[in-house]
Amino acid sequence: MNISLLARDRAFAPITNFTRRSYLPLRRDALWLIKTGVVRTLTVLEDGTAVTLGLWGEGDIVGRVLSQANPYQIECLTPVEATLIPEQNWSEVTQAMLLHMQRSEEFIEILHYKQAESSLLRLFGWLAKRFGQEVEQGKRIDLRLTHQDIADIIGLTRVTVTRLLNEFKRLGVIQRQERQFVVMQDRDPYWHYEI
Amino acid sequence: MNISLLARDRAFAPITNFTRRSYLPLRRDALWLIKTGVVRTLTVLEDGTAVTLGLWGEGDIVGRVLSQANPYQIECLTPVEATLIPEQNWSEVTQAMLLHMQRSEEFIEILHYKQAESSLLRLFGWLAKRFGQEVEQGKRIDLRLTHQDIADIIGLTRVTVTRLLNEFKRLGVIQRQERQFVVMQDRDPYWHYEI
Repeated sequence: MNISLLARDRAFAPITNFTRRSYLPLRRDALWLIKTGVVRTLTVLEDGTAVTLGLWGEGDIVGRVLSQANPYQIECLTPVEATLIPEQNWSEVTQAMLLHMQRSEEFIEILHYKQAESSLLRLFGWLAKRFGQEVEQGKRIDLRLTHQDIADIIGLTRVTVTRLLNEFKRLGVIQRQERQFVVMQDRDPYWHYEI
Repeated sequence: MNISLLARDRAFAPITNFTRRSYLPLRRDALWLIKTGVVRTLTVLEDGTAVTLGLWGEGDIVGRVLSQANPYQIECLTPVEATLIPEQNWSEVTQAMLLHMQRSEEFIEILHYKQAESSLLRLFGWLAKRFGQEVEQGKRIDLRLTHQDIADIIGLTRVTVTRLLNEFKRLGVIQRQERQFVVMQDRDPYWHYEI
């Protein structure tokens, strides 16, 4: 069963609404299936740094049992609709689990770029691909992320993120409209900057 | 069904033997269940850097379908015994998938330490916990990893790894015996070095 079927089958399962910046309840006996919106899973290191473990959207599953991180939170970056899948139905969720694992690995690749510019450019490329909406100039990312949020996602400082985003804007790789970002389509963010 | 039951049920499934540094065949219609030994999953970035996506041992599942990385390899770090789980049996594998996702996230945490020392110390702590054998002085890690292997795992240069390992040895955090490492038990590798 693929994930779109899974989502359709659950059309009548109770849907819970969450506001931006609220947290999904942590249950050990159920997984959350996201119907609309975007959440991030995160933990906090000993030195207080927030570590984003993933960004998840429509059709993704998230839940306490997918992680051993402590503390662990599932924070809504946008308004979110989600539905619970109880433990006895987990075997249906195999396809969504495969997707979850593949996306975790995409994150690991982004983190391996030791240069802050490369890591940030790849993050924006990935965000545009996963959560972007087509607009005239390119892909719009409307997650209302602050510079600090972006810093947390790839383990940079806020100051570095601000500096690099100004640079990207100057180079025409991204455009900004308040907290929306547009990744320009005629500029390949991966190669343009490095060559 | 937990993973030890899964492994037991498959006691009579055909087991394939792989030598150190060989690769598990990439199949889209089956997952590998590791019976003994340690493998790493890896990809290669555009600039030629090898990125380790995970280290996996007894009871773990690995396979092409768990990743979208391209290229993608499953390399044996030790001699390995593994058995195939065909697609039609994947629903039994839910528990192993949970474990796989949890371990991916542990990797993401290690990569978030931007200081090379912290990242390397945490890697050794994690290797000792997951793959270490109890010895008198602490936990012995016998994966026969080269400095380059270790560098690939957390995205450092070989030169940095060599320098830091000499430092750790001098501080008594680890002992080395050729390519075996002993993480000393009376020295907490996480805090000793940083305080």
